[in-house]
Amino acid sequence: MKKIGIADTTFARVDMAKFAIDVLKQNYGNIEIIRYTVPGIKDLPVAVKKLLEEKGCDIAMALGMPGPNPLDKQSAQVASLGLVTVQIMTNKHVIEVFVHEDEAKSDKELYYIAKDRTEKHAHNLIKLIFKPEELIKDAGMGKRQGFPDAGPIRL
Amino acid sequence: MKKIGIADTTFARVDMAKFAIDVLKQNYGNIEIIRYTVPGIKDLPVAVKKLLEEKGCDIAMALGMPGPNPLDKQSAQVASLGLVTVQIMTNKHVIEVFVHEDEAKSDKELYYIAKDRTEKHAHNLIKLIFKPEELIKDAGMGKRQGFPDAGPIRL
Amino acid sequence: MKKIGIADTTFARVDMAKFAIDVLKQNYGNIEIIRYTVPGIKDLPVAVKKLLEEKGCDIAMALGMPGPNPLDKQSAQVASLGLVTVQIMTNKHVIEVFVHEDEAKSDKELYYIAKDRTEKHAHNLIKLIFKPEELIKDAGMGKRQGFPDAGPIRL
Amino acid sequence: MKKIGIADTTFARVDMAKFAIDVLKQNYGNIEIIRYTVPGIKDLPVAVKKLLEEKGCDIAMALGMPGPNPLDKQSAQVASLGLVTVQIMTNKHVIEVFVHEDEAKSDKELYYIAKDRTEKHAHNLIKLIFKPEELIKDAGMGKRQGFPDAGPIRL
Amino acid sequence: MKKIGIADTTFARVDMAKFAIDVLKQNYGNIEIIRYTVPGIKDLPVAVKKLLEEKGCDIAMALGMPGPNPLDKQSAQVASLGLVTVQIMTNKHVIEVFVHEDEAKSDKELYYIAKDRTEKHAHNLIKLIFKPEELIKDAGMGKRQGFPDAGPIRL
Repeated sequence: MKKIGIADTTFARVDMAKFAIDVLKQNYGNIEIIRYTVPGIKDLPVAVKKLLEEKGCDIAMALGMPGPNPLDKQSAQVASLGLVTVQIMTNKHVIEVFVHEDEAKSDKELYYIAKDRTEKHAHNLIKLIFKPEELIKDAGMGKRQGFPDAGPIRL
Repeated sequence: MKKIGIADTTFARVDMAKFAIDVLKQNYGNIEIIRYTVPGIKDLPVAVKKLLEEKGCDIAMALGMPGPNPLDKQSAQVASLGLVTVQIMTNKHVIEVFVHEDEAKSDKELYYIAKDRTEKHAHNLIKLIFKPEELIKDAGMGKRQGFPDAGPIRL
Repeated sequence: MKKIGIADTTFARVDMAKFAIDVLKQNYGNIEIIRYTVPGIKDLPVAVKKLLEEKGCDIAMALGMPGPNPLDKQSAQVASLGLVTVQIMTNKHVIEVFVHEDEAKSDKELYYIAKDRTEKHAHNLIKLIFKPEELIKDAGMGKRQGFPDAGPIRL
Repeated sequence: MKKIGIADTTFARVDMAKFAIDVLKQNYGNIEIIRYTVPGIKDLPVAVKKLLEEKGCDIAMALGMPGPNPLDKQSAQVASLGLVTVQIMTNKHVIEVFVHEDEAKSDKELYYIAKDRTEKHAHNLIKLIFKPEELIKDAGMGKRQGFPDAGPIRL
Repeated sequence: MKKIGIADTTFARVDMAKFAIDVLKQNYGNIEIIRYTVPGIKDLPVAVKKLLEEKGCDIAMALGMPGPNPLDKQSAQVASLGLVTVQIMTNKHVIEVFVHEDEAKSDKELYYIAKDRTEKHAHNLIKLIFKPEELIKDAGMGKRQGFPDAGPIRL
């Protein structure tokens, strides 16, 4: 039995956590999910740290949707650095799933990038805690989330 | 009873703390507010850490108004990184409310962005400590502070 | 009685520490000043940490004059991040007074920016340790150092 | 007997770990290799920290292949900062081997840059733990990985 | 008797450590030098930390020669941040001597910048540990390493 933390934001324009929870619940029985919603991506690092330390989660996802402007990119970098720091303070994985608004040309495309990226990373999370050998099998395979796989280079 | 720290600056051109204090006092009874004013945004991280650790605050707001130049953006990033680090050192939330001078085309617009952003985040702060389930309800809803909500993507 | 640390550099083209020391000595009796000069701004964070921890200073100033090139901006950001980190490690304030060479159009202007900024921040330092209520009075008043105050927005 | 951790990603389009493992196994007997694959480069810092702390590795390699876009560069910087922090938290070396997709003009070139860089750094890793005097011999010699050596400046 | 750590790289195209060691040995008797060569600049922070903590060095130099491309600048920033962090973790100075390849127009000029900068900083190192009052005397004097001094501003 593993506890999984899912931190997300009210800023995002898509309910990314729902995608993650659906994948986790439909595919894996032996887990408990704790959700924690914060206003924006810079609130995610401490939210995740509290999930890992105060709620006893074994691993977490941090879901966010940074805006398209330079200041938003700067905020995303601050949030990412915080998330990396939380991980090396706790020795636990936190999968960052950020979907930048300017990755898509339409709302619809943005929605499906968010869905695909979150779902694939929900599967990655399970592999990290239950089946790490499956990740080794895919090492160097050009896996992508939010887009089709780039695939491995074939000479 | 919760203690709330509010750190702000003399550099800002709007008394942002007043907006926050008004919302908190008018809407919520069970709180004590401690205010701490510093010169500029790079002084905020330690101010907030002292509020959380030395004054026993349960949560804090960091209010600032970075200037419009590249160096100001750099200062904002340094301050933001410090604020994130304080949070993951203390396991307490600090809501950053920064209003960049170049977000507005006039003094008047700048004032109202600062007012709206600070007030909405004062409500967010209360939700974080008293009503976290209300934030979950708004997850992925495209909430904005300082501007009208972007709203969720509807397919 | 408070101990004040002043860290400065041989790189700067103006003796900024003298400005600070003059203000502090002429206006405030109850202090001891310890000065620490290092080669450049990236040496300031550890200098300040030693002042705060090994020399027992209650607060410090970090005075520097970054050059005009992109690499100098990068160095300034590294130094600033270090200074913020020192503060949140020690729970003590360090007022950063950096004057970028490209803020001025002439040597003379650069000198007076450095003088004004350092002197005003020397007064800020005293307020932080002895008279914090005076900073609250100036919150949101658009105070500037090195230049005339921007002033508060009046609607 | 030394334990060597190798962390790599499913995002990379080349199985970089294989290059490293081949060099290590073919040339050095007195080692044990532990491999850890994660989704992307921002997952590497905690993976490496777990290898060093939980698996008892003496040293590690972090292998990744950042994409060509500005956001990818930002991710690489976040990952690099995390890797440096892990090293100074553990006092153990982690050799970062990142190959940026835009370093090459073709898939084939990208493959060979990845191969050369990884292999040379596998030899560097061995020198760091078993033969540090060989690195001193090469100090200032303009060594390159992924490309031919630049060589030392000859006056 | 003081122990001085010197960390350098095989990436650099000039044997910068030799310049430092020559100055230190020819001018100062009461020291022991420990040299540590690593592949590149991002390996320097942990090398320096090991020199300070495991080898008992009182102070260190970190010598490197970042390349001319944007990615090299990013690597330099990561390395610099690591070096600043090591210093504030250990309360010991580490003098960073980085010479960027694009600071010079020719190999010869690059060589002499590296020589001048390293030698001057070797003298600075000695002042930091043995003669700090000499640095105070030079405060604000516009000292430069690698280039002629800018000198103080004279009104």
